[in-house]
Amino acid sequence: MSEPVNDRVSEAPDPQSPVTVAPQPAIRVILMPKDTNALGTIFGGIILSYIDQAGAVEAHRHAAAGRFVTVAMREVVFHFPVFVGDLVSFYTETLRRGNTSVTVKVVVEAERARTRGTRVKVTEAEVVYVHVDEGNRPLPLPAGT
Amino acid sequence: MSEPVNDRVSEAPDPQSPVTVAPQPAIRVILMPKDTNALGTIFGGIILSYIDQAGAVEAHRHAAAGRFVTVAMREVVFHFPVFVGDLVSFYTETLRRGNTSVTVKVVVEAERARTRGTRVKVTEAEVVYVHVDEGNRPLPLPAGT
Amino acid sequence: MSEPVNDRVSEAPDPQSPVTVAPQPAIRVILMPKDTNALGTIFGGIILSYIDQAGAVEAHRHAAAGRFVTVAMREVVFHFPVFVGDLVSFYTETLRRGNTSVTVKVVVEAERARTRGTRVKVTEAEVVYVHVDEGNRPLPLPAGT
Amino acid sequence: MSEPVNDRVSEAPDPQSPVTVAPQPAIRVILMPKDTNALGTIFGGIILSYIDQAGAVEAHRHAAAGRFVTVAMREVVFHFPVFVGDLVSFYTETLRRGNTSVTVKVVVEAERARTRGTRVKVTEAEVVYVHVDEGNRPLPLPAGT
Amino acid sequence: MSEPVNDRVSEAPDPQSPVTVAPQPAIRVILMPKDTNALGTIFGGIILSYIDQAGAVEAHRHAAAGRFVTVAMREVVFHFPVFVGDLVSFYTETLRRGNTSVTVKVVVEAERARTRGTRVKVTEAEVVYVHVDEGNRPLPLPAGT
Amino acid sequence: MSEPVNDRVSEAPDPQSPVTVAPQPAIRVILMPKDTNALGTIFGGIILSYIDQAGAVEAHRHAAAGRFVTVAMREVVFHFPVFVGDLVSFYTETLRRGNTSVTVKVVVEAERARTRGTRVKVTEAEVVYVHVDEGNRPLPLPAGT
Repeated sequence: MSEPVNDRVSEAPDPQSPVTVAPQPAIRVILMPKDTNALGTIFGGIILSYIDQAGAVEAHRHAAAGRFVTVAMREVVFHFPVFVGDLVSFYTETLRRGNTSVTVKVVVEAERARTRGTRVKVTEAEVVYVHVDEGNRPLPLPAGT
Repeated sequence: MSEPVNDRVSEAPDPQSPVTVAPQPAIRVILMPKDTNALGTIFGGIILSYIDQAGAVEAHRHAAAGRFVTVAMREVVFHFPVFVGDLVSFYTETLRRGNTSVTVKVVVEAERARTRGTRVKVTEAEVVYVHVDEGNRPLPLPAGT
Repeated sequence: MSEPVNDRVSEAPDPQSPVTVAPQPAIRVILMPKDTNALGTIFGGIILSYIDQAGAVEAHRHAAAGRFVTVAMREVVFHFPVFVGDLVSFYTETLRRGNTSVTVKVVVEAERARTRGTRVKVTEAEVVYVHVDEGNRPLPLPAGT
Repeated sequence: MSEPVNDRVSEAPDPQSPVTVAPQPAIRVILMPKDTNALGTIFGGIILSYIDQAGAVEAHRHAAAGRFVTVAMREVVFHFPVFVGDLVSFYTETLRRGNTSVTVKVVVEAERARTRGTRVKVTEAEVVYVHVDEGNRPLPLPAGT
Repeated sequence: MSEPVNDRVSEAPDPQSPVTVAPQPAIRVILMPKDTNALGTIFGGIILSYIDQAGAVEAHRHAAAGRFVTVAMREVVFHFPVFVGDLVSFYTETLRRGNTSVTVKVVVEAERARTRGTRVKVTEAEVVYVHVDEGNRPLPLPAGT
Repeated sequence: MSEPVNDRVSEAPDPQSPVTVAPQPAIRVILMPKDTNALGTIFGGIILSYIDQAGAVEAHRHAAAGRFVTVAMREVVFHFPVFVGDLVSFYTETLRRGNTSVTVKVVVEAERARTRGTRVKVTEAEVVYVHVDEGNRPLPLPAGT
């Protein structure tokens, strides 16, 4: 993929399609002026931070009291910019559960501040977490969660 | 009411009772070390900030593209402390819709980090927002929202 | 003056009346762009956070080395917005001293950035703190403070 | 007292001497865990930031609605560390008023969290501000302030 | 070495190998307590944020005064945790220059706070930026940069 | 160039002269909207904070695993404002190494966001650090570093 920002203008995926990943967001926030970059839009790093948090919420469903560390984030493609005041929801789904790891899909949706009700799918990502002990060594997930 | 912190130990309202205000949180966040006070628990001001944001999300359902300012927050009683790593959800419900104002109930629930699945109702609040124009003058809400 | 938001609340006090609660502020800050909301004015949650801190300063006068937790904030009515650059002072007064709790009145005054010398009373609040031990259990206040 | 850092500097003033610079602080804050450095004490840069803000408050007394930029901060010597929870006050005094500049003395005093009532003089500084126009060009101060 | 998290990923490069991507870091920071997660290590989202910033610095070498938006971040694998006080450097290299896009490789290296001189390669990433106009439409890169 | 603030200070060095202090920056950051003051330029306190961090990086070269506290910052003169989006580098050099202290020179250079490649020397400072033990008592520097 070379210049996917084109998608933002001409070939946008249908932003009105219903998000079906999860009935409830793992994380949902309103973004503020302190989250902007030099262009005045929301800094991409802020979105990446919340993706990481949202995936961790999902991972904890597999080991409620466990410790998880982020070991990988698969490719993230930004389809739309996010603006100050947008209500941004991070929906999650477990894709794979290994012996010690959990792979989570995170879908990011923004409801525009100026036109509440208009929603766009900003991006989606896969994040891999490993369940660890106090010394950060991989620890098998508890059975039957 | 004089020393309601007693509630936190002996007379805690049933924290397991289902939250029925709204099916989805208006705001949901994980709280981090940067949100702590000098005692190491989450700073109350952080919770109050998110209550304000959550209520504003609800208010915008009555005027999607409108501007709202917070004019009052009714009494807030903290039943439980919030800890680093807790997943905190802010559920909202519209209590009253006036000509230019919206009164929102916000219920705050924390899912404990160390024992995910354990939820406590931290507090609840009523917040009043007024729909305003660019000059911050009250503006009637749009009809039939 | 063009900030009529307070005409929403009936008992608005005269914002130009001198503040007599305390000779010195418990907290005094300049508010910055990072403290703004999507409307460009200071985010209400920021003001609520400082009210909480200011009240805690007052509470500590009753137990200098003690631990206090915030258990309740009585109704807060915002009479005026706060702008970037405003110098905002939080004055405090002890209203009630119980066996383990302290109730503090906090008065918030903004000195406008563009017209230093012009002061408005932004809001006032009552906040209740409980003196606690390391396990967050209520602890009697020391005598004779 | 076990904070002997200041024996590194020869001209250390008596930190217990009463602060007489101003009757009221220009800025007063409680410092929080988010303000700490890797050693767990308050990050020096935080103190320097508030010194800059406090001096600007004083400078504005000479041109209420003016714009000021910081052009110099004279030597700052830290006599004591500052800890989480300390109530830190920044007192100011105008030392010199030039045609376009104001030199402000800022005295920083910390009231210890664990032993409220115990105050130490953390540092003091001189900061020079220049009154500027919208293009950041020096602008004479208004007469007779 | 007791940070075995990276044994989760098969293609882990030798973290002790010299970093040859660029002679100078695009971004270099010390991480602070405010950057930690609930486990007390540095929050992954913070690292992702700086990767995004560092890549943008490199992208601007192809259009000094241009505007760039982040459109994609390729897979990021975290080999080691980052700790409070670590000095973290983000080295960059342009991998591809298209008509309107720039693909940047970012290598992240941490120098441990407790043992300065010990460096580990934390992660590396590829980030794609698109050069845009004021309306966020793709704009050809200037020739011959 | 239209930023004449520095004509207030007599000994302003040539800001266009090449920076020769160190081949690599100790700290390098992009400044964001959250770092601005009420005038919309970067808040001076932010620059002072990074100067403090940069000097500490240099100090640690004399005791890799040691603890250092900042005891003094010599006069800092700001020659130019810093703007949102600027890439700001902090170069360091050890000026003096005493028995327990290290004096570091920090040179601050900004590469303008709108015209990358244009660099200005924003300021320079001397900062004194003392090597301390866990009780914050001065500790001799290790020999032969």
